[in-house]
Amino acid sequence: MLSEFDLIARYFTRPPRRQDVSVGIGDDCALLIPDHEAQLAISSDMLVEGRHFFPGAEPHALGHKCLAVNLSDLAAMGAEPVAFTLALALPEANQEWLARFSSGLLELADRHGCELIGGDTTKGPLNICITIFGKVPPGQALKRDAARAGDDIWISGNLGDARLALAGYRSELDLDESTLANAAGRMHRPTPRVELGMALRGIARAAIDVSDGLSGDIAHILKKSAVGARLQIDALPAGPMLAAQDQSIRRRFMLAGGDDYELCFTAPASMRDAVLHAAAASGTAVTRVGVIEDKPGLRLVDRDGAILDLETDSFDHFTSP
Amino acid sequence: MLSEFDLIARYFTRPPRRQDVSVGIGDDCALLIPDHEAQLAISSDMLVEGRHFFPGAEPHALGHKCLAVNLSDLAAMGAEPVAFTLALALPEANQEWLARFSSGLLELADRHGCELIGGDTTKGPLNICITIFGKVPPGQALKRDAARAGDDIWISGNLGDARLALAGYRSELDLDESTLANAAGRMHRPTPRVELGMALRGIARAAIDVSDGLSGDIAHILKKSAVGARLQIDALPAGPMLAAQDQSIRRRFMLAGGDDYELCFTAPASMRDAVLHAAAASGTAVTRVGVIEDKPGLRLVDRDGAILDLETDSFDHFTSP
Repeated sequence: MLSEFDLIARYFTRPPRRQDVSVGIGDDCALLIPDHEAQLAISSDMLVEGRHFFPGAEPHALGHKCLAVNLSDLAAMGAEPVAFTLALALPEANQEWLARFSSGLLELADRHGCELIGGDTTKGPLNICITIFGKVPPGQALKRDAARAGDDIWISGNLGDARLALAGYRSELDLDESTLANAAGRMHRPTPRVELGMALRGIARAAIDVSDGLSGDIAHILKKSAVGARLQIDALPAGPMLAAQDQSIRRRFMLAGGDDYELCFTAPASMRDAVLHAAAASGTAVTRVGVIEDKPGLRLVDRDGAILDLETDSFDHFTSP
Repeated sequence: MLSEFDLIARYFTRPPRRQDVSVGIGDDCALLIPDHEAQLAISSDMLVEGRHFFPGAEPHALGHKCLAVNLSDLAAMGAEPVAFTLALALPEANQEWLARFSSGLLELADRHGCELIGGDTTKGPLNICITIFGKVPPGQALKRDAARAGDDIWISGNLGDARLALAGYRSELDLDESTLANAAGRMHRPTPRVELGMALRGIARAAIDVSDGLSGDIAHILKKSAVGARLQIDALPAGPMLAAQDQSIRRRFMLAGGDDYELCFTAPASMRDAVLHAAAASGTAVTRVGVIEDKPGLRLVDRDGAILDLETDSFDHFTSP
């Protein structure tokens, strides 16, 4: 049988790739050599089978997604990925599963120069906990408390496709095969907007990544910054699949879908050209969708400026079904 | 019902305590200001209900233990605790459980000046993943690959009490009430040897914390350092409870018990006085138990110098029962 140490050696241990990793996997701790010109950004996400992903999820995509959601947190701070730890509870040491999971994980890690430096493996109900480390020059992190009245609100990429896939899986909507496959790709292999986040340093003010649904996530910026927002609901970016759906579905999935891993950020109106330039330089579309206001709360308006009243609860792990 | 955000705010969010924590709980990432004179030591441990602790474990002790096992990894590198993240999967948001768990966790954190800076909470089978950060001056970390032939081998505190408690719980041994209660205290509330680890910088060479059982854990030092060891089995430190047991149980529990969270370290013979001084200064007993040798492998000898052949498998999460 594959031991815990064989498992780590076979699927997760590679020669060190980064010069700032002094000790990697295989000691009591990893050792990082800090960058004197940067602060260290740290985030941790735990993914549970049956909660964040379907039982029996394809392991290559799962490895990708577990790291992607953490990279997305770095992106939302404007931080550059450095390294991560992986703690993994597995019902059994299935070698095919491990080979595919580690490939999906490490391929995305290599794309961002982010090194696996340690972690833990144990037997238990499938649970994947990644803690990620990035670096950002002092004072340049994109924090949730930095939005100011008058700021534009921007969204990267498009919203709602992961929720569309979920609607297909749940048979809430009757999707054709290629629509479901494409939407499922957005759900299972999200693209963290790391390059955009870094390009927005010194340009954007506040940022958050959209993981639980836009309306709930933007509320964190509004609360921390003590401001409100007006969102042009018909300006929200839908991809071609969601654009083909009814207006009410389109709006609901973009506002409260979740699992998008796009960036929602604010920037002064004087920075519009700079935002568009940063987006182009990082190969990421961005859309201006509203404005930060002094008055607290989130106001949704249609193209005629009428204020809408929509049910837009975002996902909460303890109060959502 | 308590939401995920209320839960974090109520039980885990406090005013920042450390000046090197620039952003704590409540943003996409925490931000640490690095110490220019130090390397960053990072370790991650995942504890699963029914595997690392009993179902229904007392939550205050559980909070203590989850952080203690991570602090023990810092101790084994000689690192000073700085901060940690907590990712928590809970079957339900039980407020009494949360209050006691967070008290046990944060009391130990405060004792070591180690700040909770972020994490994640989700619904799922009970699983606790902590990633801890410490600092250590460059070149002074106690690494597993640093043992040299001729080094003394030392053990902090004493070994085998957690295994004794397990034997009581499993009715392998008939323990009286106070013995079981005392041994259980060692199992449920281990003392991480943080001060000793820091005091051994520049004195000890290699170190590891004893979590899976001494014979298995010391093997990691021997392998990484390409050396062997001779252990005086009757020199191993037993506490008074274990000392009252039969020789064969005493030996087995000290060599292959696990859950000890003592330090096993090596130091040149010329450093004996310095080791004893460091131990006294940190209020921790240490015992010299053997010597590092060129010849690979672990040799156990009794007080007459005869080599013993004992079954000493340590715990492995995938091959152990």
